[in-house]
Amino acid sequence: MKALVTGGAGFMGSHVAEALLGLGFEVWTLDDLSGGFRDNVAPAAHFVHGSICNSGLVDELFAAHRYDYVFHLAAYAAEGLSHFIRRFNYTNNLIGSVNLINASVRCDVKCFVFTSSIAVYGHLPPPMTEDLKPDPADPYGVSKYAVEMDLKAAHEMFGLNYVVFRPHNVYGERQNIGDKYRNVLGIFMNQIMQKQPMTIFGDGSQTRAFSYIGDVAPAMVAAAGRPDCYNEVFNVGSDTTYTVRELAEKVAAAFRVEPRIQSLPARNEVQHAFSSHAKIRQRLGFEASTGLDEGVTRMAAWARTHGPRQCPVFSDIEIERNLPPSWR
Amino acid sequence: MKALVTGGAGFMGSHVAEALLGLGFEVWTLDDLSGGFRDNVAPAAHFVHGSICNSGLVDELFAAHRYDYVFHLAAYAAEGLSHFIRRFNYTNNLIGSVNLINASVRCDVKCFVFTSSIAVYGHLPPPMTEDLKPDPADPYGVSKYAVEMDLKAAHEMFGLNYVVFRPHNVYGERQNIGDKYRNVLGIFMNQIMQKQPMTIFGDGSQTRAFSYIGDVAPAMVAAAGRPDCYNEVFNVGSDTTYTVRELAEKVAAAFRVEPRIQSLPARNEVQHAFSSHAKIRQRLGFEASTGLDEGVTRMAAWARTHGPRQCPVFSDIEIERNLPPSWR
Repeated sequence: MKALVTGGAGFMGSHVAEALLGLGFEVWTLDDLSGGFRDNVAPAAHFVHGSICNSGLVDELFAAHRYDYVFHLAAYAAEGLSHFIRRFNYTNNLIGSVNLINASVRCDVKCFVFTSSIAVYGHLPPPMTEDLKPDPADPYGVSKYAVEMDLKAAHEMFGLNYVVFRPHNVYGERQNIGDKYRNVLGIFMNQIMQKQPMTIFGDGSQTRAFSYIGDVAPAMVAAAGRPDCYNEVFNVGSDTTYTVRELAEKVAAAFRVEPRIQSLPARNEVQHAFSSHAKIRQRLGFEASTGLDEGVTRMAAWARTHGPRQCPVFSDIEIERNLPPSWR
Repeated sequence: MKALVTGGAGFMGSHVAEALLGLGFEVWTLDDLSGGFRDNVAPAAHFVHGSICNSGLVDELFAAHRYDYVFHLAAYAAEGLSHFIRRFNYTNNLIGSVNLINASVRCDVKCFVFTSSIAVYGHLPPPMTEDLKPDPADPYGVSKYAVEMDLKAAHEMFGLNYVVFRPHNVYGERQNIGDKYRNVLGIFMNQIMQKQPMTIFGDGSQTRAFSYIGDVAPAMVAAAGRPDCYNEVFNVGSDTTYTVRELAEKVAAAFRVEPRIQSLPARNEVQHAFSSHAKIRQRLGFEASTGLDEGVTRMAAWARTHGPRQCPVFSDIEIERNLPPSWR
């Protein structure tokens, strides 16, 4: 069985690829290395350096290898920044996805597993359930929801099977801790290792259910082998919420330092975000069994081994107005 | 007051531009002439030959002319074909729109009037009201709904005011009757003038509320001057539905010929589509006052004057599977 993992050199993609290799799949990873790293790719996987936005490359790969399964994790996932990089966001996250959907239809892929996001729920009151009609509040969430809707239309017109996952606040080993626009755990660890204070937007009372990648990735792979889960949407992640301030304390503890916090002006973001996981628990037997203390300890051990990363600045801002100063 | 009308050489855009000129606006029309015609543009309007997908051109125009209002009607609007040209659809209808939204935010446009579509409702039961959560069933509808959501997010983040219109089955003078993928009235008229039978997908019992452009365009222009209508969504069009077969008979009568019909295999389309117009009636005093007989007579008179048009074949089909043979 052949699988393509887009974003396979990235954080979640590399874990999905590894889980697939463990099950005996032949795995291709496609990654433009904009947020991923070559050394995240397991030696047993094929690696293709390129973008899902390159439809010619995508078509060539599908024609040459006739993938059975596609795990689509490539995305530019900086939700907060997406207001300021609308065109880039839709080009990467929607047009790129559509290139893969086109190729998957033509190639009779058995199942297209798509990583959507809790961002599709926008400001809907938690806990969000999959039967709610999404209501995204930023271009990132809009692009993810558009792909979900496109997959549904592609299933109805062409019979392409899909599974949509809406994970949230996933963290763990191999996260790009050098990305200052997203992934608060990585940002905190990178700051601590560079002896900088941890930066928090607003008062840090916003809550998130941080979810360990070692729980999430195997569930995504399992779904591809479960036709009774096809053409369904699943929230996936942890049920336990923490404030961002509590998180900062746990990260500091894992590095055995005192928590030093620098407050930044609040930005336009959802205050409380957590999903219901009743559906995935019932249908796939999913449990987020790794607690935050354990997960943070593991990720911190990995981060210490790899050291801090430089923060590339996103240079192609389309709208400067209201951009948080720390993102300039 | 300066207004930009995208798709201003097209059918609806040229009527909107004309209505604006009548109110004393200075009007720029931007059109790539993929579906529009240079001679649709009133001499009093500026004409720019170019695409909304060219962000450099869009930015230049806004910087040079500082538009007060934007009427965005440029789109590739072949809903049924959109399944087979997904990438083209999203590039034109979403990325192009986002270029305009970016520029409108930067330029402090007073109001961005967006032409969405009844297609955002998908298979929701009629009569559709604006408070329903959209559920588009094809890539065209997905792209229109994505732009609606992006405008809402842009309003919340940047204060850009917008009005969204969801028209349906608009017809009238200056329609591109040479487009064989859309606009059943134009298709019928073009076929009659070429002494071909009128082609109908399925048994012709599908119903639509055909709406005359002379009623629709002035309402769209009026909304831009009504801040109490800003950041709202309006259905716009006629309340009276006809079957496609009844329509064929009316078109034939307007050309004083016997209706000759060729049935094609049914395609994947919505069977009955009509919207509620209670909101626009109440808020804007809208009435679709032109009946179908009168509108068809006017459009037929125009079509006879201009003669049939050649049908360009869309050459860049992305997925061939399930494509209706008549569209090849």
